[in-house]
Amino acid sequence: MISIGDLDTPAVVVDRRIVEANLRRAQNHADRQGLKLRPHVKTHKLALFAGRQIELGAVGITCQKIGEAEVMAEVGIRDIFIPYNILGAEKLERLLALHRRLALSVTADSMATVEGYASRFGDPGRPLPVLVECDTGAGRCGVQDPAEAEALAAFIDGKPGLRFAGLMTYPPKGRMAEIDAWLSEARDRIEKAGMPVETISNGGTPDFYAATRVTAATEHRPGTYIYSDRTQVGFGVGGIADCALTVLATVVSLPTKTRMVLDAGSKALAADRCPSAPGHGHIVEYPEAVITGLSEEHAVVDLSGCPERPRIGDKVRVVPNHVCVVTNLFDGVHLAEDGEVIARLPVRARGRMS
Amino acid sequence: MISIGDLDTPAVVVDRRIVEANLRRAQNHADRQGLKLRPHVKTHKLALFAGRQIELGAVGITCQKIGEAEVMAEVGIRDIFIPYNILGAEKLERLLALHRRLALSVTADSMATVEGYASRFGDPGRPLPVLVECDTGAGRCGVQDPAEAEALAAFIDGKPGLRFAGLMTYPPKGRMAEIDAWLSEARDRIEKAGMPVETISNGGTPDFYAATRVTAATEHRPGTYIYSDRTQVGFGVGGIADCALTVLATVVSLPTKTRMVLDAGSKALAADRCPSAPGHGHIVEYPEAVITGLSEEHAVVDLSGCPERPRIGDKVRVVPNHVCVVTNLFDGVHLAEDGEVIARLPVRARGRMS
Repeated sequence: MISIGDLDTPAVVVDRRIVEANLRRAQNHADRQGLKLRPHVKTHKLALFAGRQIELGAVGITCQKIGEAEVMAEVGIRDIFIPYNILGAEKLERLLALHRRLALSVTADSMATVEGYASRFGDPGRPLPVLVECDTGAGRCGVQDPAEAEALAAFIDGKPGLRFAGLMTYPPKGRMAEIDAWLSEARDRIEKAGMPVETISNGGTPDFYAATRVTAATEHRPGTYIYSDRTQVGFGVGGIADCALTVLATVVSLPTKTRMVLDAGSKALAADRCPSAPGHGHIVEYPEAVITGLSEEHAVVDLSGCPERPRIGDKVRVVPNHVCVVTNLFDGVHLAEDGEVIARLPVRARGRMS
Repeated sequence: MISIGDLDTPAVVVDRRIVEANLRRAQNHADRQGLKLRPHVKTHKLALFAGRQIELGAVGITCQKIGEAEVMAEVGIRDIFIPYNILGAEKLERLLALHRRLALSVTADSMATVEGYASRFGDPGRPLPVLVECDTGAGRCGVQDPAEAEALAAFIDGKPGLRFAGLMTYPPKGRMAEIDAWLSEARDRIEKAGMPVETISNGGTPDFYAATRVTAATEHRPGTYIYSDRTQVGFGVGGIADCALTVLATVVSLPTKTRMVLDAGSKALAADRCPSAPGHGHIVEYPEAVITGLSEEHAVVDLSGCPERPRIGDKVRVVPNHVCVVTNLFDGVHLAEDGEVIARLPVRARGRMS
């Protein structure tokens, strides 16, 4: 057995027990509320955890990229939603190949995207389910109002090789009533026009435990909940002890009495900021410390507020600001229990750009 | 031949002619000034370009990680400087293996780091060259004043398997007189104490063309100069036309008249900010556009200032804020000339964490 402290740094350590607790808590909540759970695998990008999410009761998974879906298909996941406007000949060919193997669904927010799907998917006996992406206030992709949603639903419905399968949103944080009104109105309009709205898919970890306030939603796609991170803790989703993923780093320099430098920079922790706390991550052993600056291979830490001082060569664990982007930086993660490494897992779905 | 516009997105495109011009300009400048050039390969992480840098006259290369040095050693690079405090048994073993194969040098800013080197390197017939890292104002690693530099030089000099080889700094931007005074004083003290200061290694692209104002320096380690990026342009290092690396992205959504969404998010462009310009990158085809937000797989763009409007499916090229971190996100890059792809190069030194 290798202890965590013996790992070469920087290294990602994932606590299996915290993962299991986070997964169960979310699945139990979804089950109690009658909400289908469709976890977003972008946070972990691991076949092992996608499989565990399904075992615990998830109806399928969510992938953001075809390349991620291909990796998950290889290990036997058979229901995958890609909530993205997928464009271009090369991607559409790969989509078609996936559709032959499993229950695949996608989204669109424009006629151009729908036309692309219709150009490749023409079999009325096995149509591609397409959900309409709705901008309920987050200001990213999506049709802008329920009337547009109805028009696009009808457009999809008119294509023999496609099937209008419902509505999808990546919601703005904390605006549940607004989101619910938007989606309910769209659903009612579309059903009145004679098209069943099978699925209404909501997303995001921050509001997952308040998600039933979006009464129109039938499923939820949380991603970050499996590992949690400093940003989620700031949002009130559990505490630092519920963060399953940490980056193990070594103290490589102590140039002054209050400055420490770690060997985990933006290449290991990523440069995403945390809305609720200063600096580039939470150091478990020095909770008062502030990571004031990152360059690619260095984190500069202000120890002014810390009662204890480290020594050069000590190892510390950092809870990152945003865990999903950290997953994408490491080719492998270490699974641990009680401070011991129990497995090294390659992150096979990492770096899938398309 | 594949045209750039036919590539699946997001994809990294590197213009070979711009690279060549950037490399030659820098080498010519160094040659004219009598400054040794030791390019930092973190920016490209490619054997091809490391080789070209040597061909053009670089004295060797700089790597930030042992893993990068190992990749470069495999392709025949024979002079590598790792300007980092290298700690831990595993890394020291790998360092020893590299030292047997090529001219390797490292840095230290503490006795603890030097003791680590001395624990593995004990052959006075082939000592490990160690430079003292000096904090000349950047506030990262480094001894804090010339007296400390002298003390650490003497400590290195006292270890039979190590050789004090000079001074190294990662300098603060724009403070050449201050840096020069620091390094000159340290050199004079150390030489007066009887130790030759063979190399004084300065770094950074922003001030490379003003680097001779640091008269004490004998070599320079620019990295970003090979590709340049939006931050360097902001610093006055050439223009957007001198940026060799762009991220090709597809317009996947036009939800409103002024909002465009691209399929290149923080997983492709990285979240680093640019000190001199708003947003997350410069869009070549829409120079007035502002990338207002990034999520992992989406860039949200404000087109308010743009006279032209794109169509869904169009492809655009983005000059990233910080190019080195983009290199680390893609497993491969496309080398192009005159709009045609001439090679796809795997980024073999990508993701080397240790």
